Amino acid sequence: MDLNKNLNDVVNLLINNGKTIAIAESCTGGFISHMITNIPGASKTFDRGFVCYSNEAKIDVINVEPEVIKKFGAVSEEVARQLAYNVRILSNVDIGIGITGIAGPTGGTPEKPVGLVYIGISTEEDTIVEKNIFQTDRINFKAKVLERVLQLIKKN
Amino acid sequence: MDLNKNLNDVVNLLINNGKTIAIAESCTGGFISHMITNIPGASKTFDRGFVCYSNEAKIDVINVEPEVIKKFGAVSEEVARQLAYNVRILSNVDIGIGITGIAGPTGGTPEKPVGLVYIGISTEEDTIVEKNIFQTDRINFKAKVLERVLQLIKKN
Repeated sequence: MDLNKNLNDVVNLLINNGKTIAIAESCTGGFISHMITNIPGASKTFDRGFVCYSNEAKIDVINVEPEVIKKFGAVSEEVARQLAYNVRILSNVDIGIGITGIAGPTGGTPEKPVGLVYIGISTEEDTIVEKNIFQTDRINFKAKVLERVLQLIKKN
Repeated sequence: MDLNKNLNDVVNLLINNGKTIAIAESCTGGFISHMITNIPGASKTFDRGFVCYSNEAKIDVINVEPEVIKKFGAVSEEVARQLAYNVRILSNVDIGIGITGIAGPTGGTPEKPVGLVYIGISTEEDTIVEKNIFQTDRINFKAKVLERVLQLIKKN
């Protein structure tokens, strides 16, 4: 798949459908926002992005509940769900994306290995979270997550 | 200059000096956060980033004063200063970076051409803003801004 063509298609699909989007990303560190905003005209759909690297950022900026991070960990389905849902509501947009995972090379555990990532997508209708494991280097990891994000946007 | 080596040096300089950083970027769309977080260990210095693409995002998220945007425009020294200063205070970090400009290919005017960018850097000591014009394509524009951001961090 040509990632750049796909990216261009998805951004133009959003623009043509009049849909706005906001993103709260952790392990992808701004890459998803960066790639979307590489497409000329992206400002018509992309409103804002948040790179919530620390737990404090997730709590302070996107209102993720500290108890949820404590109970399930920052890399969890529940946190991805709150990132996606809350960023949509906070930003007053049609689609919210939330991403939390372990890009590596360190930070993995037997239960939560390097490459684990939860991607949440929230619309007025529903908020769903997908779990993936992309065991590759830090840079390809980000590209794999972007691929899935584009797929999820297309389906929703 | 090797941008990746420079990036690696600056991130490690920040880590070794125990300095934390937060970024509020507009026209670079998450690229600065993305590149910094490509360096393993970046989480020790990089706390959070904001991609404030719309004026509403600048106002709602980073508390840029609407009157300042109205008076000077979103692409202005004053807005870069508020982005840099406010993101530092809001994020409780040592260094705040604020970036606003016109990546193009559209959006330029005779007074504010495509490629114009204001980069602010705020520390406890001072907040300074630098003006540059990088007339190139959207992707090289982002790289040029990153180069200047790294220079400014090194100097401060």
